[in-house]
Amino acid sequence: MATQGTLFGVGVGPGDPKLMTIKAGEVIRTADILAYPVNSAGESQARSIAYPIFEDSSTELPLHIPMNVERDPAREAYDSAANQISTFLMTGKDVAYLCIGDPMFYGSFMYLAARLGVSHKVEVIPGVTSLSACAAQTRMPLAGRTDVLSVIPATLDEPELESALKHTDTAVVIKVGRHMKKVRDTLRKLGLSDSAIVVENGSGAGERITLVEQVTDDTKPYFSTILVSRRDVT
Amino acid sequence: MATQGTLFGVGVGPGDPKLMTIKAGEVIRTADILAYPVNSAGESQARSIAYPIFEDSSTELPLHIPMNVERDPAREAYDSAANQISTFLMTGKDVAYLCIGDPMFYGSFMYLAARLGVSHKVEVIPGVTSLSACAAQTRMPLAGRTDVLSVIPATLDEPELESALKHTDTAVVIKVGRHMKKVRDTLRKLGLSDSAIVVENGSGAGERITLVEQVTDDTKPYFSTILVSRRDVT
Repeated sequence: MATQGTLFGVGVGPGDPKLMTIKAGEVIRTADILAYPVNSAGESQARSIAYPIFEDSSTELPLHIPMNVERDPAREAYDSAANQISTFLMTGKDVAYLCIGDPMFYGSFMYLAARLGVSHKVEVIPGVTSLSACAAQTRMPLAGRTDVLSVIPATLDEPELESALKHTDTAVVIKVGRHMKKVRDTLRKLGLSDSAIVVENGSGAGERITLVEQVTDDTKPYFSTILVSRRDVT
Repeated sequence: MATQGTLFGVGVGPGDPKLMTIKAGEVIRTADILAYPVNSAGESQARSIAYPIFEDSSTELPLHIPMNVERDPAREAYDSAANQISTFLMTGKDVAYLCIGDPMFYGSFMYLAARLGVSHKVEVIPGVTSLSACAAQTRMPLAGRTDVLSVIPATLDEPELESALKHTDTAVVIKVGRHMKKVRDTLRKLGLSDSAIVVENGSGAGERITLVEQVTDDTKPYFSTILVSRRDVT
Protein backbone atom coordinates (compact mmCIF):
# COMPACT_ATOMS: atom_id res chain seq x y z
CA MET A 1 0.00 0.00 0.00
CA ALA A 2 1.29 3.44 -0.95
CA THR A 3 1.93 5.96 1.79
CA GLN A 4 -1.06 8.20 2.32
CA GLY A 5 -0.86 11.96 2.05
CA THR A 6 -1.26 14.52 4.82
CA LEU A 7 -4.11 17.02 5.15
CA PHE A 8 -2.78 20.42 6.22
CA GLY A 9 -5.16 23.04 7.60
CA VAL A 10 -3.32 26.23 6.71
CA GLY A 11 -4.24 29.58 8.26
CA VAL A 12 -3.55 32.28 5.66
CA GLY A 13 -4.22 35.14 8.07
CA PRO A 14 -6.67 38.04 7.99
CA GLY A 15 -6.16 39.47 4.51
CA ASP A 16 -2.75 41.02 3.88
CA PRO A 17 -0.68 38.26 2.16
CA LYS A 18 2.35 39.39 4.20
CA LEU A 19 0.51 38.31 7.36
CA MET A 20 0.86 34.68 6.30
CA THR A 21 3.42 32.80 8.38
CA ILE A 22 6.68 31.47 6.97
CA LYS A 23 5.38 27.93 7.61
CA ALA A 24 2.10 28.58 5.76
CA GLY A 25 4.14 29.78 2.79
CA GLU A 26 6.25 26.61 2.83
CA VAL A 27 3.25 24.29 2.98
CA ILE A 28 1.40 26.17 0.20
CA ARG A 29 4.47 26.01 -2.06
CA THR A 30 5.07 22.28 -1.54
CA ALA A 31 1.58 20.75 -1.23
CA ASP A 32 0.34 18.71 -4.21
CA ILE A 33 -3.22 20.01 -3.98
CA LEU A 34 -4.41 23.45 -2.86
CA ALA A 35 -7.98 23.18 -1.61
CA TYR A 36 -10.10 26.12 -0.42
CA PRO A 37 -13.75 26.97 0.28
CA VAL A 38 -15.66 28.88 -2.40
CA ASN A 39 -19.03 30.58 -1.98
CA SER A 40 -22.03 30.21 -4.27
CA ALA A 41 -20.59 32.87 -6.60
CA GLY A 42 -17.40 30.81 -6.94
CA GLU A 43 -15.30 33.32 -4.98
CA SER A 44 -12.71 32.37 -2.38
CA GLN A 45 -11.20 34.90 -0.01
CA ALA A 46 -8.67 32.34 1.26
CA ARG A 47 -7.43 31.75 -2.31
CA SER A 48 -7.16 35.51 -2.96
CA ILE A 49 -4.94 35.95 0.08
CA ALA A 50 -2.60 33.07 -0.75
CA TYR A 51 -2.62 33.45 -4.54
CA PRO A 52 0.56 35.60 -4.72
CA ILE A 53 2.59 32.58 -3.58
CA PHE A 54 0.87 29.83 -5.62
CA GLU A 55 3.26 27.82 -7.83
CA ASP A 56 2.34 27.19 -11.48
CA SER A 57 2.54 23.47 -10.78
CA SER A 58 -0.10 23.50 -8.00
CA THR A 59 -3.39 21.72 -8.61
CA GLU A 60 -6.36 23.62 -7.22
CA LEU A 61 -9.40 22.04 -5.59
CA PRO A 62 -12.22 24.56 -5.00
CA LEU A 63 -14.79 23.19 -2.54
CA HIS A 64 -18.31 24.52 -2.17
CA ILE A 65 -18.80 25.23 1.54
CA PRO A 66 -21.90 27.22 2.45
CA MET A 67 -21.47 29.94 5.09
CA ASN A 68 -24.07 30.94 7.61
CA VAL A 69 -26.46 28.09 6.91
CA GLU A 70 -28.47 25.68 9.01
CA ARG A 71 -26.74 22.48 10.03
CA ASP A 72 -28.07 19.93 7.54
CA PRO A 73 -26.99 21.41 4.19
CA ALA A 74 -23.66 22.34 5.77
CA ARG A 75 -23.16 18.73 6.86
CA GLU A 76 -23.74 17.44 3.35
CA ALA A 77 -21.29 19.98 1.95
CA TYR A 78 -18.62 18.94 4.47
CA ASP A 79 -19.23 15.25 3.75
CA SER A 80 -18.80 15.87 0.05
CA ALA A 81 -15.69 18.05 0.52
CA ALA A 82 -14.14 15.45 2.86
CA ASN A 83 -14.74 12.73 0.25
CA GLN A 84 -13.03 14.74 -2.48
CA ILE A 85 -10.03 15.48 -0.23
CA SER A 86 -9.85 11.85 0.87
CA THR A 87 -9.53 10.66 -2.74
CA PHE A 88 -6.30 12.64 -3.09
CA LEU A 89 -4.94 11.64 0.33
CA MET A 90 -5.48 7.95 -0.50
CA THR A 91 -3.22 8.25 -3.54
CA GLY A 92 -0.41 9.75 -1.49
CA LYS A 93 -1.01 13.43 -2.34
CA ASP A 94 -0.59 16.12 0.33
CA VAL A 95 -3.56 18.48 0.47
CA ALA A 96 -3.35 22.01 1.89
CA TYR A 97 -6.78 23.38 2.83
CA LEU A 98 -6.54 27.18 2.98
CA CYS A 99 -8.42 28.94 5.78
CA ILE A 100 -8.90 32.67 6.33
CA GLY A 101 -7.41 33.67 9.68
CA ASP A 102 -6.73 30.62 11.84
CA PRO A 103 -8.03 27.09 11.03
CA MET A 104 -9.30 26.38 14.56
CA PHE A 105 -11.03 29.72 15.09
CA TYR A 106 -14.60 29.80 13.70
CA GLY A 107 -13.49 28.15 10.48
CA SER A 108 -14.67 25.35 8.20
CA PHE A 109 -11.49 23.30 8.62
CA MET A 110 -12.45 21.82 12.00
CA TYR A 111 -15.44 20.09 10.40
CA LEU A 112 -13.23 18.58 7.71
CA ALA A 113 -10.66 17.50 10.30
CA ALA A 114 -13.41 15.83 12.36
CA ARG A 115 -14.34 13.77 9.28
CA LEU A 116 -10.82 13.00 8.00
CA GLY A 117 -8.75 12.92 11.20
CA VAL A 118 -9.61 9.36 12.12
CA SER A 119 -8.25 7.73 8.97
CA HIS A 120 -5.74 10.34 7.72
CA LYS A 121 -2.78 12.32 9.00
CA VAL A 122 -3.84 15.89 9.80
CA GLU A 123 -1.59 18.84 10.63
CA VAL A 124 -2.69 22.38 11.53
CA ILE A 125 -0.67 25.51 10.72
CA PRO A 126 -2.06 28.28 12.94
CA GLY A 127 -2.60 31.76 11.52
CA VAL A 128 -3.12 35.37 12.55
CA THR A 129 -6.82 35.95 13.37
CA SER A 130 -8.97 38.89 12.31
CA LEU A 131 -9.04 39.85 16.01
CA SER A 132 -5.32 40.53 16.10
CA ALA A 133 -5.45 42.33 12.74
CA CYS A 134 -8.30 44.59 13.89
CA ALA A 135 -6.52 45.40 17.15
CA ALA A 136 -3.32 46.16 15.22
CA GLN A 137 -5.05 48.49 12.75
CA THR A 138 -7.02 50.38 15.40
CA ARG A 139 -4.21 50.18 17.98
CA MET A 140 -6.92 49.19 20.47
CA PRO A 141 -5.57 46.46 22.78
CA LEU A 142 -7.61 43.26 22.93
CA ALA A 143 -6.88 42.55 26.60
CA GLY A 144 -4.22 42.81 29.26
CA ARG A 145 -3.42 41.78 32.83
CA THR A 146 -6.43 40.05 34.43
CA ASP A 147 -8.97 40.99 31.74
CA VAL A 148 -11.43 38.38 30.54
CA LEU A 149 -11.70 38.71 26.74
CA SER A 150 -14.75 37.28 25.01
CA VAL A 151 -15.26 36.63 21.34
CA ILE A 152 -18.98 36.95 20.66
CA PRO A 153 -20.75 36.07 17.39
CA ALA A 154 -23.20 38.81 16.38
CA THR A 155 -25.58 36.06 15.28
CA LEU A 156 -26.63 35.44 18.91
CA ASP A 157 -30.10 36.49 20.05
CA GLU A 158 -30.28 39.85 21.82
CA PRO A 159 -30.56 38.42 25.38
CA GLU A 160 -27.58 36.08 24.82
CA LEU A 161 -25.57 38.90 23.26
CA GLU A 162 -26.35 41.14 26.23
CA SER A 163 -25.43 38.44 28.73
CA ALA A 164 -22.13 37.69 27.01
CA LEU A 165 -21.22 41.39 26.89
CA LYS A 166 -22.10 41.83 30.57
CA HIS A 167 -19.88 38.96 31.72
CA THR A 168 -16.58 40.08 30.23
CA ASP A 169 -14.04 42.91 30.53
CA THR A 170 -13.29 43.33 26.84
CA ALA A 171 -15.09 41.87 23.86
CA VAL A 172 -14.77 41.36 20.16
CA VAL A 173 -18.05 40.94 18.29
CA ILE A 174 -17.50 38.99 15.06
CA LYS A 175 -19.60 38.23 11.95
CA VAL A 176 -21.41 41.58 12.30
CA GLY A 177 -23.06 41.66 8.84
CA ARG A 178 -26.80 42.19 9.01
CA HIS A 179 -26.71 42.24 12.84
CA MET A 180 -25.18 45.74 13.04
CA LYS A 181 -28.30 47.42 14.42
CA LYS A 182 -28.92 44.75 17.09
CA VAL A 183 -25.30 44.95 18.27
CA ARG A 184 -25.30 48.76 18.35
CA ASP A 185 -28.58 48.83 20.30
CA THR A 186 -27.25 46.30 22.82
CA LEU A 187 -23.97 48.19 23.27
CA ARG A 188 -25.92 51.41 23.84
CA LYS A 189 -28.16 49.74 26.42
CA LEU A 190 -25.04 48.63 28.33
CA GLY A 191 -23.29 52.00 28.00
CA LEU A 192 -20.53 50.46 25.90
CA SER A 193 -21.13 52.07 22.53
CA ASP A 194 -19.07 55.25 22.92
CA SER A 195 -15.62 53.72 22.64
CA ALA A 196 -16.60 50.75 20.44
CA ILE A 197 -15.03 50.59 16.99
CA VAL A 198 -16.20 48.79 13.83
CA VAL A 199 -13.52 47.35 11.54
CA GLU A 200 -14.56 46.18 8.07
CA ASN A 201 -12.17 43.76 6.33
CA GLY A 202 -9.31 44.32 8.83
CA SER A 203 -5.89 44.38 7.07
CA GLY A 204 -7.47 43.33 3.74
CA ALA A 205 -8.58 45.32 0.68
CA GLY A 206 -11.45 47.65 1.54
CA GLU A 207 -10.46 48.06 5.18
CA ARG A 208 -12.53 50.72 6.94
CA ILE A 209 -12.50 51.77 10.60
CA THR A 210 -15.45 53.68 12.13
CA LEU A 211 -16.72 54.49 15.63
CA VAL A 212 -19.92 52.53 16.34
CA GLU A 213 -21.73 55.79 17.12
CA GLN A 214 -20.84 57.12 13.67
CA VAL A 215 -22.29 54.13 11.82
CA THR A 216 -25.66 54.93 10.30
CA ASP A 217 -26.14 51.69 8.30
CA ASP A 218 -28.00 48.78 9.86
CA THR A 219 -25.88 46.30 7.90
CA LYS A 220 -22.14 45.85 7.45
CA PRO A 221 -20.06 43.30 5.49
CA TYR A 222 -20.03 39.79 7.02
CA PHE A 223 -16.35 40.11 7.88
CA SER A 224 -16.85 43.13 10.11
CA THR A 225 -15.74 43.12 13.69
CA ILE A 226 -16.55 45.38 16.65
CA LEU A 227 -13.98 45.98 19.37
CA VAL A 228 -15.45 46.79 22.78
CA SER A 229 -13.24 47.69 25.71
CA ARG A 230 -13.60 48.95 29.24
CA ARG A 231 -9.84 49.08 29.68
CA ASP A 232 -7.71 52.08 30.54
CA VAL A 233 -4.13 51.54 29.39
CA THR A 234 -1.55 53.49 31.35
CA MET B 1 14.47 68.81 12.16
CA ALA B 2 15.32 65.24 11.14
CA THR B 3 12.49 62.81 10.38
CA GLN B 4 11.59 60.75 13.41
CA GLY B 5 11.69 56.97 13.43
CA THR B 6 8.77 54.58 13.71
CA LEU B 7 8.09 52.25 16.63
CA PHE B 8 6.97 48.83 15.39
CA GLY B 9 5.27 46.41 17.77
CA VAL B 10 6.15 43.09 16.15
CA GLY B 11 4.35 39.87 17.09
CA VAL B 12 6.84 37.01 16.74
CA GLY B 13 4.24 34.30 17.35
CA PRO B 14 3.98 31.52 19.92
CA GLY B 15 7.41 29.89 19.79
CA ASP B 16 8.25 28.17 16.49
CA PRO B 17 10.27 30.75 14.48
CA LYS B 18 8.44 29.57 11.34
CA LEU B 19 5.20 30.88 12.84
CA MET B 20 6.46 34.43 12.42
CA THR B 21 4.69 36.29 9.61
CA ILE B 22 6.45 37.37 6.42
CA LYS B 23 5.86 40.99 7.49
CA ALA B 24 7.40 40.43 10.94
CA GLY B 25 10.48 39.00 9.22
CA GLU B 26 10.79 42.05 6.97
CA VAL B 27 10.49 44.52 9.84
CA ILE B 28 12.99 42.62 12.01
CA ARG B 29 15.52 42.51 9.15
CA THR B 30 15.24 46.22 8.32
CA ALA B 31 14.72 47.95 11.70
CA ASP B 32 17.67 49.90 13.08
CA ILE B 33 17.08 48.79 16.66
CA LEU B 34 15.70 45.47 17.92
CA ALA B 35 14.17 45.98 21.36
CA TYR B 36 12.66 43.20 23.50
CA PRO B 37 11.63 42.58 27.12
CA VAL B 38 14.02 40.66 29.36
CA ASN B 39 13.24 39.16 32.75
CA SER B 40 15.29 39.58 35.90
CA ALA B 41 17.58 36.73 34.78
CA GLY B 42 18.30 38.60 31.54
CA GLU B 43 16.38 36.07 29.42
CA SER B 44 14.07 37.01 26.57
CA GLN B 45 11.73 34.52 24.97
CA ALA B 46 10.80 37.00 22.23
CA ARG B 47 14.48 37.36 21.29
CA SER B 48 14.96 33.57 21.24
CA ILE B 49 12.10 33.16 18.77
CA ALA B 50 13.26 35.89 16.39
CA TYR B 51 17.03 35.34 16.75
CA PRO B 52 17.35 33.01 13.71
CA ILE B 53 16.55 35.97 11.44
CA PHE B 54 18.57 38.72 13.22
CA GLU B 55 21.05 40.51 10.93
CA ASP B 56 24.65 41.04 12.12
CA SER B 57 24.14 44.75 11.68
CA SER B 58 21.15 44.97 14.07
CA THR B 59 21.57 46.88 17.31
CA GLU B 60 19.86 45.19 20.25
CA LEU B 61 18.06 47.01 23.07
CA PRO B 62 17.09 44.67 25.93
CA LEU B 63 14.53 46.29 28.22
CA HIS B 64 13.78 45.17 31.77
CA ILE B 65 10.02 44.66 31.95
CA PRO B 66 8.75 42.87 35.06
CA MET B 67 6.04 40.25 34.56
CA ASN B 68 3.27 39.53 36.99
CA VAL B 69 3.94 42.45 39.29
CA GLU B 70 1.85 45.07 40.98
CA ARG B 71 1.09 48.21 39.03
CA ASP B 72 3.58 50.72 40.41
CA PRO B 73 6.92 49.01 39.69
CA ALA B 74 5.57 47.99 36.27
CA ARG B 75 4.70 51.62 35.51
CA GLU B 76 8.23 52.75 36.34
CA ALA B 77 9.69 50.01 34.14
CA TYR B 78 7.45 51.03 31.23
CA ASP B 79 8.29 54.71 31.70
CA SER B 80 11.99 53.90 31.62
CA ALA B 81 11.67 51.58 28.60
CA ALA B 82 9.60 54.20 26.73
CA ASN B 83 12.28 56.83 27.43
CA GLN B 84 15.03 54.60 26.05
CA ILE B 85 13.03 53.83 22.91
CA SER B 86 12.11 57.50 22.47
CA THR B 87 15.79 58.49 22.39
CA PHE B 88 16.32 56.34 19.31
CA LEU B 89 13.08 57.42 17.61
CA MET B 90 14.06 61.12 18.05
CA THR B 91 17.26 60.55 16.07
CA GLY B 92 15.35 59.00 13.16
CA LYS B 93 15.95 55.33 14.03
CA ASP B 94 13.21 52.75 13.49
CA VAL B 95 12.73 50.55 16.56
CA ALA B 96 11.13 47.07 16.39
CA TYR B 97 9.84 45.92 19.78
CA LEU B 98 9.52 42.12 19.71
CA CYS B 99 6.49 40.58 21.44
CA ILE B 100 5.70 36.92 22.05
CA GLY B 101 2.44 36.01 20.30
CA ASP B 102 0.51 39.11 19.30
CA PRO B 103 1.40 42.65 20.50
CA MET B 104 -2.19 43.60 21.44
CA PHE B 105 -3.03 40.38 23.27
CA TYR B 106 -1.95 40.40 26.95
CA GLY B 107 1.42 41.88 26.04
CA SER B 108 3.73 44.61 27.27
CA PHE B 109 3.69 46.50 23.98
CA MET B 110 0.34 48.18 24.57
CA TYR B 111 1.76 49.98 27.60
CA LEU B 112 4.70 51.27 25.56
CA ALA B 113 2.38 52.32 22.72
CA ALA B 114 0.19 54.21 25.21
CA ARG B 115 3.28 56.19 26.29
CA LEU B 116 4.88 56.72 22.88
CA GLY B 117 1.89 56.84 20.53
CA VAL B 118 1.08 60.49 21.16
CA SER B 119 4.42 61.88 19.99
CA HIS B 120 5.73 59.12 17.72
CA LYS B 121 4.61 57.04 14.76
CA VAL B 122 3.56 53.58 15.91
CA GLU B 123 2.76 50.56 13.74
CA VAL B 124 1.59 47.13 14.93
CA ILE B 125 2.40 43.86 13.12
CA PRO B 126 -0.07 41.26 14.44
CA GLY B 127 1.13 37.75 15.27
CA VAL B 128 -0.12 34.22 15.87
CA THR B 129 -1.28 33.88 19.50
CA SER B 130 -0.56 30.99 21.87
CA LEU B 131 -4.29 30.20 21.67
CA SER B 132 -4.11 29.35 18.00
CA ALA B 133 -0.88 27.41 18.49
CA CYS B 134 -2.36 25.33 21.33
CA ALA B 135 -5.49 24.59 19.32
CA ALA B 136 -3.35 23.57 16.33
CA GLN B 137 -1.16 21.25 18.39
CA THR B 138 -4.03 19.56 20.21
CA ARG B 139 -6.36 19.76 17.18
CA MET B 140 -8.99 20.99 19.60
CA PRO B 141 -11.06 23.74 17.94
CA LEU B 142 -11.22 27.05 19.80
CA ALA B 143 -14.77 27.89 18.73
CA GLY B 144 -17.23 27.65 15.87
CA ARG B 145 -20.66 28.78 14.71
CA THR B 146 -22.42 30.72 17.51
CA ASP B 147 -20.00 29.78 20.32
CA VAL B 148 -18.87 32.45 22.74
CA LEU B 149 -15.13 31.96 23.34
CA SER B 150 -13.59 33.48 26.47
CA VAL B 151 -9.95 33.98 27.26
CA ILE B 152 -9.60 33.82 31.03
CA PRO B 153 -6.44 34.62 33.02
CA ALA B 154 -5.78 31.96 35.68
CA THR B 155 -4.74 34.78 38.00
CA LEU B 156 -8.40 35.63 38.73
CA ASP B 157 -9.89 34.81 42.13
CA GLU B 158 -11.82 31.55 42.30
CA PRO B 159 -15.32 33.14 42.21
CA GLU B 160 -14.40 35.31 39.21
CA LEU B 161 -12.83 32.32 37.46
CA GLU B 162 -15.95 30.26 38.08
CA SER B 163 -18.24 33.02 36.84
CA ALA B 164 -16.20 33.53 33.66
CA LEU B 165 -16.20 29.78 32.94
CA LYS B 166 -19.94 29.57 33.50
CA HIS B 167 -20.77 32.37 31.06
CA THR B 168 -19.07 31.00 27.97
CA ASP B 169 -19.30 28.08 25.54
CA THR B 170 -15.58 27.45 25.13
CA ALA B 171 -12.70 28.86 27.11
CA VAL B 172 -8.96 29.19 27.10
CA VAL B 173 -7.37 29.69 30.50
CA ILE B 174 -4.02 31.45 30.12
CA LYS B 175 -1.06 32.17 32.44
CA VAL B 176 -1.71 28.94 34.37
CA GLY B 177 1.59 28.76 36.28
CA ARG B 178 1.09 28.45 40.03
CA HIS B 179 -2.70 28.57 39.64
CA MET B 180 -2.96 25.01 38.25
CA LYS B 181 -4.68 23.56 41.32
CA LYS B 182 -7.25 26.36 41.59
CA VAL B 183 -8.13 26.05 37.90
CA ARG B 184 -8.41 22.24 38.08
CA ASP B 185 -10.64 22.43 41.17
CA THR B 186 -12.90 25.00 39.50
CA LEU B 187 -13.17 22.96 36.28
CA ARG B 188 -14.08 19.87 38.36
CA LYS B 189 -16.73 21.79 40.27
CA LEU B 190 -18.31 22.83 36.95
CA GLY B 191 -18.01 19.35 35.39
CA LEU B 192 -15.62 20.66 32.75
CA SER B 193 -12.40 18.92 33.70
CA ASP B 194 -12.78 15.66 31.76
CA SER B 195 -12.13 17.02 28.28
CA ALA B 196 -9.89 19.92 29.31
CA ILE B 197 -6.29 19.85 28.04
CA VAL B 198 -3.17 21.55 29.39
CA VAL B 199 -0.59 22.75 26.85
CA GLU B 200 2.82 23.79 28.14
CA ASN B 201 4.88 26.01 25.82
CA GLY B 202 2.61 25.47 22.79
CA SER B 203 4.65 25.16 19.53
CA GLY B 204 7.89 26.11 21.32
CA ALA B 205 10.72 24.05 22.79
CA GLY B 206 9.50 21.90 25.69
CA GLU B 207 5.97 21.58 24.39
CA ARG B 208 3.89 19.13 26.40
CA ILE B 209 0.21 18.23 26.12
CA THR B 210 -1.67 16.56 29.02
CA LEU B 211 -5.28 15.98 30.02
CA VAL B 212 -6.16 18.11 33.05
CA GLU B 213 -7.26 15.00 34.95
CA GLN B 214 -3.81 13.47 34.42
CA VAL B 215 -1.95 16.45 35.88
CA THR B 216 -0.76 15.75 39.41
CA ASP B 217 1.35 18.89 39.89
CA ASP B 218 -0.20 21.97 41.48
CA THR B 219 2.04 24.23 39.42
CA LYS B 220 2.84 24.49 35.71
CA PRO B 221 5.09 26.83 33.69
CA TYR B 222 3.76 30.39 33.39
CA PHE B 223 3.17 29.94 29.65
CA SER B 224 0.76 27.05 30.11
CA THR B 225 -2.70 27.17 28.68
CA ILE B 226 -5.82 25.10 29.35
CA LEU B 227 -8.35 24.49 26.57
CA VAL B 228 -11.90 23.93 27.78
CA SER B 229 -14.67 23.04 25.37
CA ARG B 230 -18.28 21.96 25.47
CA ARG B 231 -18.37 21.69 21.70
CA ASP B 232 -19.25 18.66 19.63
CA VAL B 233 -17.76 18.94 16.15
CA THR B 234 -19.59 16.96 13.50
